Amino acid sequence: MPKEICLAVDAMGGDFGPEVNVPGSLAAARETGARIILVGDEASIAAELAKHDHGDVHLEIVHATQVAGMAEKPSDVLRRKKDSSIQVAFRLVRDGQAHGVVTAGNSGAALACGMFILGRVTGVDRPALASILPTLKKPVVLIDVGANADCNPYNLVQFGLMAEVLARYVLDITNPKVGILSIGEEEGKGNALTKEAYALLKNSSLNFIGNVEGRDVYTGDTDVIVCDGFVGNVALKLSEGLGTALATMLKTELNKSVWSRLGTLISWAAFKRFGKKIDYAEYGGAPILGLNGIAIVCHGASSARAITTALNQAAVFVQKRANEQLVQGLRANTELDLFSRSGQSCALKQRTRTAM
Amino acid sequence: MPKEICLAVDAMGGDFGPEVNVPGSLAAARETGARIILVGDEASIAAELAKHDHGDVHLEIVHATQVAGMAEKPSDVLRRKKDSSIQVAFRLVRDGQAHGVVTAGNSGAALACGMFILGRVTGVDRPALASILPTLKKPVVLIDVGANADCNPYNLVQFGLMAEVLARYVLDITNPKVGILSIGEEEGKGNALTKEAYALLKNSSLNFIGNVEGRDVYTGDTDVIVCDGFVGNVALKLSEGLGTALATMLKTELNKSVWSRLGTLISWAAFKRFGKKIDYAEYGGAPILGLNGIAIVCHGASSARAITTALNQAAVFVQKRANEQLVQGLRANTELDLFSRSGQSCALKQRTRTAM
Repeated sequence: MPKEICLAVDAMGGDFGPEVNVPGSLAAARETGARIILVGDEASIAAELAKHDHGDVHLEIVHATQVAGMAEKPSDVLRRKKDSSIQVAFRLVRDGQAHGVVTAGNSGAALACGMFILGRVTGVDRPALASILPTLKKPVVLIDVGANADCNPYNLVQFGLMAEVLARYVLDITNPKVGILSIGEEEGKGNALTKEAYALLKNSSLNFIGNVEGRDVYTGDTDVIVCDGFVGNVALKLSEGLGTALATMLKTELNKSVWSRLGTLISWAAFKRFGKKIDYAEYGGAPILGLNGIAIVCHGASSARAITTALNQAAVFVQKRANEQLVQGLRANTELDLFSRSGQSCALKQRTRTAM
Repeated sequence: MPKEICLAVDAMGGDFGPEVNVPGSLAAARETGARIILVGDEASIAAELAKHDHGDVHLEIVHATQVAGMAEKPSDVLRRKKDSSIQVAFRLVRDGQAHGVVTAGNSGAALACGMFILGRVTGVDRPALASILPTLKKPVVLIDVGANADCNPYNLVQFGLMAEVLARYVLDITNPKVGILSIGEEEGKGNALTKEAYALLKNSSLNFIGNVEGRDVYTGDTDVIVCDGFVGNVALKLSEGLGTALATMLKTELNKSVWSRLGTLISWAAFKRFGKKIDYAEYGGAPILGLNGIAIVCHGASSARAITTALNQAAVFVQKRANEQLVQGLRANTELDLFSRSGQSCALKQRTRTAM
């Protein structure tokens, strides 16, 4: 564990820029004791900082002249915006000046910066976005939630290998249960991709529990659920949308009469606890797994609280040496090579197929 | 519109068999005035019927000696269970003795019976399961929710053409807005399948509004959302699971103190209205579109109320001549052929590609 944790924040990122990133970073600096480097337009950051008490915490500003747009093409950000806050923040990690980076900016650009500035862990074909979701029991890691829209079965196994390390060393779960998101519990149910991945996972060293249906994602009975980035992104955003829709519907009903408004007031504390339990701002961001460095991507609409939580999460990743664990875990596991693009040898295919 | 609507029910289907199918059918017969044929083991059905008043409604029993298991392979049900309640019920529709069939049984078997007993509408490559979901505004048709785990882009366009007719003629929506479920709003976002389907849909006669993200499914701003059956099934079951998980979490919080329990009691009517609004039992089943006949598949865990709602929905389909509308709508639309497997001509591909 490093003596002092240092985290870089893309202060211009997200829908609200410094307005949420600065106070979010301030709170995280207080809560974790970490030194935080705010990357972006110095004047805007200083103006926002001036609104808050900040004498007691370690904050620095690193100036960056450009901002990556939320809808800008990742390749354009990489090529044409060398001095964008997101690129500069990632470079601080690459150059050892920060232990990790948090951004609420363009997530495609974050992935591209991760790939091309930090680089991939040896043996990892495709870094993936992991989301740690609240459930009825303990949290579940859903991976990939959007980095790779089209995947092959080997990618899914690698996602499982990476997320298993996260669940084991960061979430402290003993022997994490790994499932594959599918459309039926039995083996043989699914699409072409998941059926092939099932066969590979079944023969891997992972504690593979088989198919997990959509309705079982939130029960908390599985620790890691793998899927391609298209399905995972739909699942993540659908959850967000449905949560909002249900809350709106309930509010509408509760507002309809004086009695129910009174009842709501009386139960207020319970609603507040419930709201906190399901608020994504309380669950941090989505770490990109498979990079040479810690990078956490937040929702574009993140509040200051969401930024704080993601920074706190990044600090835990640093403390628990998440990335070293990942590298070591993957290195110890000879399967990573077997399941890498270059490792799709006939021998392996033979082995996994005959083993069924 | 036929003088008397007649519907067949797979009385042995679902997790609870006659226990829910019989009272569910009784209520539907009362609510719609339809004649309902209960298909299955005569003794079990009669025993359940004896528990209820039923002198005032048109109910018949058609005996079937076999029951299709919920986990049985559809092909096995088709081949080895010719006298299963689900097969007999579908045959009643094929033979003109019923206008439609409702089953809470094995949905794979229902699809197989639909395909091989009723047959496909000319030009339709793949019948699909449509789900009519409640949203913040009007209902949305999500298609396919599980019939076709692997799809090509042409399938998705056909799903859109079929669901558009449903939205127009059954849900009475003028010029239904059709979107494609994807992982970004902009054209060019998505996976290989949705990007190709986007190009085809953009050049179709449908009122295509582009990509719809997971978070926008429940806003009610789109009338029809197309996706492959894998993604749709995950989305549907995830919604169910998340709804249950959120309800459980809220109940737990509300039960934690005397005050919040009191508040809940006072607001009870509002909670009840909310519960009814989001209860899938109130939203009927999933019609299979593209068959020569009306077939509605219900959740295996359906309550009697869910069966009643599905039968009421089937009666509306009959009244509104949903299937004739579908056949006519598709026939009038020369695109169905263009977008059929056999119609994947180079000319069309050329046209849709150059048009971009």
